[in-house]
Amino acid sequence: MILSLVAAALAAAQTAAPQPFADAVTPPGETRADTAETPATTGGWTLLVHGGAGTIRRDRITAEQDADYRAAIDAALMAGRAVLAKGGSALDAVQAAVELMEDDPLFNAGRGAVFTHDRTNELDAAIMDGRTRAAGAVARLTTSRHPVAVARAVLRDGRHVMLTGADADRFGADRGVEQMDPAWFATPHRREQIDEFLRREAGAKAVSSYDIDQKFGTVGAVARDARGHLAAATSTGGLTGKRWGRIGDAPIIGAGTYADDRACAVSATGAGEYFIRVGVAHEICARVRLAGESLQQAADAVMAEVLALGGSGGVIVAGPDGRSAFSFNTEGMYRGRLTSDGVHEVAIYNDE
Amino acid sequence: MILSLVAAALAAAQTAAPQPFADAVTPPGETRADTAETPATTGGWTLLVHGGAGTIRRDRITAEQDADYRAAIDAALMAGRAVLAKGGSALDAVQAAVELMEDDPLFNAGRGAVFTHDRTNELDAAIMDGRTRAAGAVARLTTSRHPVAVARAVLRDGRHVMLTGADADRFGADRGVEQMDPAWFATPHRREQIDEFLRREAGAKAVSSYDIDQKFGTVGAVARDARGHLAAATSTGGLTGKRWGRIGDAPIIGAGTYADDRACAVSATGAGEYFIRVGVAHEICARVRLAGESLQQAADAVMAEVLALGGSGGVIVAGPDGRSAFSFNTEGMYRGRLTSDGVHEVAIYNDE
Repeated sequence: MILSLVAAALAAAQTAAPQPFADAVTPPGETRADTAETPATTGGWTLLVHGGAGTIRRDRITAEQDADYRAAIDAALMAGRAVLAKGGSALDAVQAAVELMEDDPLFNAGRGAVFTHDRTNELDAAIMDGRTRAAGAVARLTTSRHPVAVARAVLRDGRHVMLTGADADRFGADRGVEQMDPAWFATPHRREQIDEFLRREAGAKAVSSYDIDQKFGTVGAVARDARGHLAAATSTGGLTGKRWGRIGDAPIIGAGTYADDRACAVSATGAGEYFIRVGVAHEICARVRLAGESLQQAADAVMAEVLALGGSGGVIVAGPDGRSAFSFNTEGMYRGRLTSDGVHEVAIYNDE
Repeated sequence: MILSLVAAALAAAQTAAPQPFADAVTPPGETRADTAETPATTGGWTLLVHGGAGTIRRDRITAEQDADYRAAIDAALMAGRAVLAKGGSALDAVQAAVELMEDDPLFNAGRGAVFTHDRTNELDAAIMDGRTRAAGAVARLTTSRHPVAVARAVLRDGRHVMLTGADADRFGADRGVEQMDPAWFATPHRREQIDEFLRREAGAKAVSSYDIDQKFGTVGAVARDARGHLAAATSTGGLTGKRWGRIGDAPIIGAGTYADDRACAVSATGAGEYFIRVGVAHEICARVRLAGESLQQAADAVMAEVLALGGSGGVIVAGPDGRSAFSFNTEGMYRGRLTSDGVHEVAIYNDE
């Protein structure tokens, strides 16, 4: 299924007339002018996705890998478009886009998630509705094929916002989310990474998750639908070698994920611990709402704050007027943008 | 140990000359003027604690219960004072105050925590350093006597911000946090509450945790130390009858707990799900920092937002200049304030 979607997406990417994407990307450490944002739309829709940020450079990626990632990002855009183009909700669109990336082993979410220190795959996800600020979040899932679908079920149930562990998998199963053998999430590439991590650690070398993967592979999507409502969703396997039941920023409402129709919808990827401390997603919304900053100004300012604390990563942001922004302080971020006005962008490096 | 501390605290409370506490409490739904805040201090220290908010009315509380709660709140203030008065850090002070309340069965934190739907006690806590915005959070602990001490160990370790479950208890044990038999946390009163909850649920009646306890019993502390640094800590057993590995706002950095020397330190208690969706603690700090609001204005505005979504509860707030504020939209909040300038207040009801 993935392969055929990827093929379709590749074809779509080739026929699209992309706008100059470089206009929408902020060089690390710089703040862009307002004019760099996409124009406001009324009645139209906007979708942005990301597949992680990090030391993603042309000299480290083969032409085939480059094409695979672009196709996968585009496939996620197409999944969201299928919802938005027929008048569907932002909430449904971000879920559809993220579910597709959860299935794709290229990304650190769902299938293809990194391994914990105990050699398990533990999955975190969140989804938020900007219209009502209802939210659902899950952490440490091990059997739910689509963690974001469990998060959506939590949102729909409404009693709690955040569920964790095997209990949360059972909650998802009860509500129809497909359950898999935990082995389904494990891929050879991620197994090699945890082996390398544990080997270095045993050698008493200081080793960070980032040393191993060189990137933060969280996936996410933000959207504005034709009714003007916003939504955000994020899903991740977290950090290679994470320990002691660690939860990162992705499922923390306000850190890795936030949506508020009064301001914007944000999904983040990066060194989660810094994103939690800064409250990245909520802080971007707060700057837009309280300080009157543009999406790009707010996103750049908050990413600069993350950098000042020692962290790196990136965010995607969508606003209620159709404007949107990317901001990241790494060498690359897998990302895409699609709008009802014909904007269709897929990019990887920070000079695109 | 508790009893002697309580006795000492009672004595202290009786000898203190409390300032008119009503000045510092905001009537539900109203916004206070700036002047209602305590004056700024330089070189001095400030400590606020809370022990939960809810339908806490004189006609529901015996004179003995009233006195017990006041003594327990005052004991927490004294524990923090022991740190602050000798020049200790805000971080140490809030931990000391919260640990004392975790040991006290009167509060829904540590010993005396409410029961989950599975009849277990699962403990959440967080602590944050306003100087560095370093943070530690834990959820679903079942054996660590002082969950806030495990959160502090997470902060100190620095690799992760949030740990969960049995793995987090083990992390705490490795770092010297006292481990107990899970039965230690269970009290007869809380057992009656879960029995009543499950009985009503079995009768197919709609039952909320709040119906049972009539309050949210989270505990917390915020402080400003003599060096001008801030800290916040929160600890809770969550909601009676919570299910599926639910995590509330207390351990969510930005929701129930946040500290930032540039703005304020906040600890919350209330209907956690709403506090997560609003991002209460971070939002109060954001309003102070970005919109120039006073602590009281910001706290009142955010509590009004929680109320508008359907939630209730309260917050305690301390600022870098020694100012502080309480805000709650319930009939009572167990609370106290102590400063190096001689302010010494302990209160329960919203008309105090």
